[in-house]
Amino acid sequence: MPNSATLLADFLCGLGARGIPAPALAHGRRAFLNWMGCSLGAASHQAVDALLGSLNDMGTLRNTMVIGRGRTADMQHAALINATTSSILAFDDTHRDTVTHPTGPVAAALLAYAEHYPLSGRDFLSALVLGIEIECRLSNALSRSPADYNVGWYLTGVTGAAGAAAALGVAMRLDPTAMIHALGLGALQGAGFRQAHGSMCLGFVPGHAARAGVLAAFMAKNGFTCSAEVFEGKNGFFDVFGKKPVRELLTENLGGCWEVEQNLCKPYPAGIFIHAAIDACLDVRLKQSLAPADIESVRLVVHPLGVGLTGRAAPKDTIEALVSIYHWAAVSLLTGRAGIAEVTDERVRDSEVVALRDRIVAVADPALARDEALIIVTTTDGRELKAHIAHALGGPDRPLGDAEVAAKFLVQAETVIPRKQADRIVALCADLDHLSDMREIIDLLATGEGRGVTAGNRAAAGVQA
Amino acid sequence: MPNSATLLADFLCGLGARGIPAPALAHGRRAFLNWMGCSLGAASHQAVDALLGSLNDMGTLRNTMVIGRGRTADMQHAALINATTSSILAFDDTHRDTVTHPTGPVAAALLAYAEHYPLSGRDFLSALVLGIEIECRLSNALSRSPADYNVGWYLTGVTGAAGAAAALGVAMRLDPTAMIHALGLGALQGAGFRQAHGSMCLGFVPGHAARAGVLAAFMAKNGFTCSAEVFEGKNGFFDVFGKKPVRELLTENLGGCWEVEQNLCKPYPAGIFIHAAIDACLDVRLKQSLAPADIESVRLVVHPLGVGLTGRAAPKDTIEALVSIYHWAAVSLLTGRAGIAEVTDERVRDSEVVALRDRIVAVADPALARDEALIIVTTTDGRELKAHIAHALGGPDRPLGDAEVAAKFLVQAETVIPRKQADRIVALCADLDHLSDMREIIDLLATGEGRGVTAGNRAAAGVQA
Repeated sequence: MPNSATLLADFLCGLGARGIPAPALAHGRRAFLNWMGCSLGAASHQAVDALLGSLNDMGTLRNTMVIGRGRTADMQHAALINATTSSILAFDDTHRDTVTHPTGPVAAALLAYAEHYPLSGRDFLSALVLGIEIECRLSNALSRSPADYNVGWYLTGVTGAAGAAAALGVAMRLDPTAMIHALGLGALQGAGFRQAHGSMCLGFVPGHAARAGVLAAFMAKNGFTCSAEVFEGKNGFFDVFGKKPVRELLTENLGGCWEVEQNLCKPYPAGIFIHAAIDACLDVRLKQSLAPADIESVRLVVHPLGVGLTGRAAPKDTIEALVSIYHWAAVSLLTGRAGIAEVTDERVRDSEVVALRDRIVAVADPALARDEALIIVTTTDGRELKAHIAHALGGPDRPLGDAEVAAKFLVQAETVIPRKQADRIVALCADLDHLSDMREIIDLLATGEGRGVTAGNRAAAGVQA
Repeated sequence: MPNSATLLADFLCGLGARGIPAPALAHGRRAFLNWMGCSLGAASHQAVDALLGSLNDMGTLRNTMVIGRGRTADMQHAALINATTSSILAFDDTHRDTVTHPTGPVAAALLAYAEHYPLSGRDFLSALVLGIEIECRLSNALSRSPADYNVGWYLTGVTGAAGAAAALGVAMRLDPTAMIHALGLGALQGAGFRQAHGSMCLGFVPGHAARAGVLAAFMAKNGFTCSAEVFEGKNGFFDVFGKKPVRELLTENLGGCWEVEQNLCKPYPAGIFIHAAIDACLDVRLKQSLAPADIESVRLVVHPLGVGLTGRAAPKDTIEALVSIYHWAAVSLLTGRAGIAEVTDERVRDSEVVALRDRIVAVADPALARDEALIIVTTTDGRELKAHIAHALGGPDRPLGDAEVAAKFLVQAETVIPRKQADRIVALCADLDHLSDMREIIDLLATGEGRGVTAGNRAAAGVQA
């Protein structure tokens, strides 16, 4: 059996845009729109200020679009920043089986590339779907059986760089030999673990993957070599990242199924394992509006990962609260909403939210599905209000459709750009197959030239020692 | 007990240059000279062509020195390329207990920084020693007991980014809070595995670490956050990279011992586990010159890692031969030498070398030390020539001294720069404490402006679409 890198390279190099079926392309378009909205919605985040400040200190070109912040980075760092913003509010998307957030590294890398090497909408979309395919298949091979996987890894960072490299390789029309090296150079930069999820690194790890993918593809194009045995060879990708990797999942039935169809867009800017709990809280709240003083205690029952990955009891700020089931339960019970406005620093520190948060107990029950939750609210007058969510909104059984994703996009986009411009992006994305040059979308996203950019960042490229 | 990142940050931020004792500084100077030579000796390597070509395609500034290739990259990529060249011929240095190659990521990152933010020789040297300290302590904590470690990881890539970030953090005089984030942002980019050792990625992984360290330090300086529990926290660095990490090795006795004193410069451009075998072959050859036809067979007995990591039986080119014990045994028996000239593509494919190589058997014996080897050469006329090397040259019991490292440097440097210039670098490095500005050395290394650089690379910065 040939090695996986060769099989993947043959698949990627041999399949024209025509080879990807319509449903996969439709999912790709939706993922792309959802991703752009997430970057727009976090364009003013302090993490972006820090990254742009770093570029200024280090001296880089300012020739590539940073979403919502003008043309303020070079190609690699535009990719890095745009994948950082799309994930930093935990509002992006999720590959169902592996909890990879697939679109960020791939879309950000491709968009930065497409600004300098023109791509049609169709070619962009094909490359996007193929990059996501590689990324999610790598994630499948490593983690399909969670018990046999080291859950400390941040899968998006581990597999995203190879996915982004594959996408750029497709866009560049690399030959199979160069494609093998591009995949390897991406895989070799796979990195990131979950310890720093409660910091800006929630966004930086996908950002790193995007930049790594760009570099990998250009290095391969220019003749830099890696190893064809990079995935299953001794001391290779599977050896170091896997416990019991299932190699076959990387290459079996290539082109016969499409991982992007397993991709889900999030309805709430919260860790995915919190969503069912939010639904349960909103359900109780919808049935009966409760003042904080009415609530004696709240008992949440969720899948063990809901407590294990998102059981942060006392978040200090937005970044920590994004992955705190306690914050989201409290704020959604109190307000009946669960959007970006419910996770600002101010809201996280709000005394009513904090007081209610401390009366919530979250319990893990392995009998529950990942997208299931139970809630029992005990009121001060002794009643018990209950709700059971069998399937979370945005989960595999209740996925967001195109209209819901467009609505989500508009809310995020309007934090930075005029409504008319946001509507235009939605329209272009709906008809992406017929867009002759991606730069039409890029120009619309580049709005906010100078917005929130410090004086230092506006200075001419070159180090300000 | 405070977390490790806090302990390290307090150590790094609290210790002035005066705090590092003279022997550690002397080892730092030696490591730096050895490192510069290694980059000079590979300045014309095709990997550098590929990297410079990539930068041209992506559009980056050309304001920072690439050793032997002029000012042809931006700060991050100069760090990346200079750490790539220093390791791509496997001629760099080795931390005794962990087989980390410590100087590349740290020195390359610091030198790129020092071109734009002036550093004295003393400050450079202090930052270098401290960066190596962090890098090697991380390696100690992960791998002190090899049986409890996943040897698939390329340790230099895993720990080098945090080491480089620490060094730049010291040079920048970050406060302890920013230093914690710098360490974390470096650790989070830790990456690389050994599968691709037989490709240009032997150099790229340390290069990646250097660039990652530069970015980490500048991001931390600009307010980007990570986690203080990044090392020992749940789903942290030790969780994902370690099997049975020994946390204490990261922080105990900080300032009381210095890892750079455990650093060894290589006498041969070969994997470290091959060195004793080369000594054995040179010893036999010194006693008796043998024509290829005189040799019936060769039996080498080495530590198991000599076969496990470097047992490549039929290397195709320089890169594969660097880690082939068979190539080195054959070529050193035939020529009585083991330098850069003995590992060119031509030499690797030389029919006499190949024919002798195929008559060599390398056997693993766990009773032997890592730096020990036995050889039995059976001649066609029935004699047995034997040698036993108890301790390899360049190993812990026979380390190269300053004079030998300077001699090694001059041979490497003369492949790119005039002898007089190389002598000047040796002299400046010997008196590094009194050098007022590192840019004096940087200017001497920047020679070769345009050398081997393609026309495309000379074009103005900006993407050539």
